[in-house]
Amino acid sequence: MLALAIHGGAGSFAPESLTVERWHAYDAALRQALDAGFRQLDAGQSSLDAVEAAVRVLEDEPVFNAGRGAVFSHDGINELDAAIMDGASLRAGAVAALRHVRHPVSLARRVMENSPHVLLAGAGAEDFALEQGIELCARSWFHTEHRYQQLLRARSGETAAAECLDYFGTVGAVAVDAHGSLAAATSTGGMTGKRWGRIGDSPIIGAGTYASNASCAVSATGHGEFLLRATAAREVAARMEHLGEPVGTAAAFVIHQRLQGLGGQGGLVAMDASGTVAFAYNTRAMFRGVIDASGRRETGLFPP
Amino acid sequence: MLALAIHGGAGSFAPESLTVERWHAYDAALRQALDAGFRQLDAGQSSLDAVEAAVRVLEDEPVFNAGRGAVFSHDGINELDAAIMDGASLRAGAVAALRHVRHPVSLARRVMENSPHVLLAGAGAEDFALEQGIELCARSWFHTEHRYQQLLRARSGETAAAECLDYFGTVGAVAVDAHGSLAAATSTGGMTGKRWGRIGDSPIIGAGTYASNASCAVSATGHGEFLLRATAAREVAARMEHLGEPVGTAAAFVIHQRLQGLGGQGGLVAMDASGTVAFAYNTRAMFRGVIDASGRRETGLFPP
Repeated sequence: MLALAIHGGAGSFAPESLTVERWHAYDAALRQALDAGFRQLDAGQSSLDAVEAAVRVLEDEPVFNAGRGAVFSHDGINELDAAIMDGASLRAGAVAALRHVRHPVSLARRVMENSPHVLLAGAGAEDFALEQGIELCARSWFHTEHRYQQLLRARSGETAAAECLDYFGTVGAVAVDAHGSLAAATSTGGMTGKRWGRIGDSPIIGAGTYASNASCAVSATGHGEFLLRATAAREVAARMEHLGEPVGTAAAFVIHQRLQGLGGQGGLVAMDASGTVAFAYNTRAMFRGVIDASGRRETGLFPP
Repeated sequence: MLALAIHGGAGSFAPESLTVERWHAYDAALRQALDAGFRQLDAGQSSLDAVEAAVRVLEDEPVFNAGRGAVFSHDGINELDAAIMDGASLRAGAVAALRHVRHPVSLARRVMENSPHVLLAGAGAEDFALEQGIELCARSWFHTEHRYQQLLRARSGETAAAECLDYFGTVGAVAVDAHGSLAAATSTGGMTGKRWGRIGDSPIIGAGTYASNASCAVSATGHGEFLLRATAAREVAARMEHLGEPVGTAAAFVIHQRLQGLGGQGGLVAMDASGTVAFAYNTRAMFRGVIDASGRRETGLFPP
């Protein structure tokens, strides 16, 4: 059955800190992304097309930490990471430390389809973008005032620990198409105040992003260093493949046992080839949405 | 039991293409690395100290594709990647796209121990190196004539497919110390003619490098794009943890089934917490060495 699930990050903020107006902005963006992605599936396009289309919408929404709206590095620069993976072939593409690419997820897909490599970083990745005719934009496109203020507060040391690590706005999508084939994509600005060319889990195959038709498609969000050490996304798939766990059991184990055991915070969405969706998070909330061929179209934030 | 195992890459070259003189150079370097690493274990130092010491020796040897002797990118630059992981804590550090760091493995260890991040890339990673007092050197340090000629031949298109993909000189080490704790480290120059800021499997936790006291320590070498897609290093550990496979069975499966199934070439060394060592490779040969407290000290190249 055609299905698409997306996330817009996970966080530990208190319910009272989110106004209705602000939730409406998130909710509208999530629904727009669901519609854009599902339109692809409905038109007979692949799950890769669906996750790319959904993530592109979220990359343009300044409320999420991906594309426009990305957080700032310690040096005051927006540096973007993304990945995409095809569950049928285990082909994958990823990009890191981009500064001028409006849609990192689309560049990741070009890496997968038009280069001999899997992961490209920095200025070299942008050379490849230019060769591929991918849209570049001025750094000002990524500048949003609320993110910049977040960096200033973080740099002043006031709220670094409390604020920067309690909300992760990475976006991602997983989908299954009419051929029963899975795909996953993730896009992020990383972590406020990140330093020294830091790369997180999102563009790392097996950490923030993974897809295999043998098990599931996964996109993660959260404190990237812990998701990297946990090889979180591949771990959900490996537990399904090795242990026969259902997708919900495997996803819950990886977040509530493995990630939690390392002391990390975050969440993920996973989908198996029948379109069953599992969200797991050890934060207070996770921005999420699901749409499928049965007419279901739901968004959510706090646990059901 | 104290044990250390190392590799200096895997390849498909024919036995007749390796002269005795050349093998002696490799063999001497492997033995020197074994001695340097085992000296640490013997003195009661940690497995992290042992793998770092062994890899540092290999990074200085121009016959291997790591540190001095690294291959050239398409643009004629040596770009170095490395990672290290501690099996006791699952802490990890990694660096990518370095151009001036003599010992990438030591910078990876500083990332693990002295930064809040896991993976640093490019100029930012070198800023961190300077802050940490890590030795930088001129790019000429990494220039070796045989690698440069290899690039010229690859760029001319004559031997790109045949030569650049038939030998992988990445180096790595795994060890277990007196506390029964495992560690893994890997260092590489990547792939001759790599483009656009390509990052391979070596610095990716779960792909080229992984260690957990719950299962094993792993360092891989080979065609990085395939090892990335296979999440090769974590996969060996996951099969031991999930399926109870012995280290040799898990290592053989990952190379001869999973990597081979994707069409990739390469090899890996894996060690469990009792010091049992497994080398697996689907290339014709793999430079390798083992040393342990029983007095065993062996090097090898072709299958036994």
